[in-house]
Amino acid sequence: MKKTERILCLTEILLSRPNELLPLGFFAEHFETAKSTISEDLAVIKETLQLTGRGTLETVPGAAGGVKYLPGIGKEEAQNFLEKLAATLSTEDRMLPGGFLYMADLLYDPAVVRTLGLIFASIFRAKNPEAVVTIETKGIPLALMTADSLGVPTVIVRHGSKVTEGSSVSINYISGSSKRIQTMTLARRALASGKKVLIIDDFIKAGGTAKGIISLMKEFEAEVVGLGILMEDALWHTGRLVEDYLALLQLAEIDPESGKTIVKANKI
Amino acid sequence: MKKTERILCLTEILLSRPNELLPLGFFAEHFETAKSTISEDLAVIKETLQLTGRGTLETVPGAAGGVKYLPGIGKEEAQNFLEKLAATLSTEDRMLPGGFLYMADLLYDPAVVRTLGLIFASIFRAKNPEAVVTIETKGIPLALMTADSLGVPTVIVRHGSKVTEGSSVSINYISGSSKRIQTMTLARRALASGKKVLIIDDFIKAGGTAKGIISLMKEFEAEVVGLGILMEDALWHTGRLVEDYLALLQLAEIDPESGKTIVKANKI
Repeated sequence: MKKTERILCLTEILLSRPNELLPLGFFAEHFETAKSTISEDLAVIKETLQLTGRGTLETVPGAAGGVKYLPGIGKEEAQNFLEKLAATLSTEDRMLPGGFLYMADLLYDPAVVRTLGLIFASIFRAKNPEAVVTIETKGIPLALMTADSLGVPTVIVRHGSKVTEGSSVSINYISGSSKRIQTMTLARRALASGKKVLIIDDFIKAGGTAKGIISLMKEFEAEVVGLGILMEDALWHTGRLVEDYLALLQLAEIDPESGKTIVKANKI
Repeated sequence: MKKTERILCLTEILLSRPNELLPLGFFAEHFETAKSTISEDLAVIKETLQLTGRGTLETVPGAAGGVKYLPGIGKEEAQNFLEKLAATLSTEDRMLPGGFLYMADLLYDPAVVRTLGLIFASIFRAKNPEAVVTIETKGIPLALMTADSLGVPTVIVRHGSKVTEGSSVSINYISGSSKRIQTMTLARRALASGKKVLIIDDFIKAGGTAKGIISLMKEFEAEVVGLGILMEDALWHTGRLVEDYLALLQLAEIDPESGKTIVKANKI
């Protein structure tokens, strides 16, 4: 096998198995070559990943070591993506009752949430979250793609208290905007005690849901290392129940006559 | 830029933008080289993709043409993955009330569902689905990853009838195993009329839910081109409401004394 082909195969394998520690010996055997040759190949791949902004390779030395591909996205590419997404959301027919914006078409579009997940992962990777937590339903794709980019499991909190997965923890919370008492539940076995968690959700208005998830996390002795939100409602002026979050977009204006919404990208 | 580096960058860009048609002119400009050189590079990438079983490149000729990376997984690798997954599921503490198996840890693990999504995509790509449909909640990650590998949107049917996304279609259905009447709903704007759809779900017992989704699809004049299920309950002997489905795994045995379950991988 020629060098170009070997290095290409290596790249294809690494990129298709993100966040997985692959021993150099595995590649050396697979390509019937020396580990030192594989090391040289990896150095070239690392350089080109920098050029394309597609992430980086982490090398773990030692007997139990190897190489791991950590997916990423360039800052400029990320910002451009958010600007384009904001423009897509700034239209006349997306307003829903309750001041929410219709976003399901985008939230359920794999290519859109894949890129958003990469953006969240790039922002929060340094906090070393061990799980990504969200509440059903609309935030699930976003949380899953973030977890995929970070290489950690997803934990999905359910609405209500009917969870059939063994013992569970339920909490009541007050939705900040509608002031209704609601219940959210998480099965005990869904999250081990004492983990670092990143919370991901699609929208924040008064912050009642986010505050509820944070309370629930306390029951699991989890440390919340970040709260990433796709869109904050900048038109909500009566105070938020949580302050420390990072939103990628903001709902900035609604024209009451036409119903046209204006969504802006935040600087990340 | 040397040839090896260019071809690596090209690979990284293609693999990170699956199912997207990228014009050859885009690459020629980006790498400041001739289109014919890019064509040669693509031929080498296509070959190595065959070697690693990571999918294929589709070349679309003409002025509006370009190249598209279609993700895939080799048949042997897929079968091995399913065998390992079946072994993981064959334990003593996974039985839930109602004869369901606890699978949430795996269904919400991005690396697991990414591979399962690739497997479903490889099986159903030839049917040209234009959307992947599922019902909340546990099947969502599976459906999303399948849709991502196919390059089509996900459509998520909601339980109950409280959908706040404009006009919607609800149907009542009878859960085949519990015999309870339930409701499922889909917003009108979630799926355009007359599309080819692939239905994906995590579990099938009597098939009531699957039959419900199929009925709902008729309301959208959709053509169901496939029904992919992660696990069929092979212990359910009283007939299924749907027959034409493809399951990757089967729940084959439950030992009533120990509660140990035996899960087998189907031949794909």
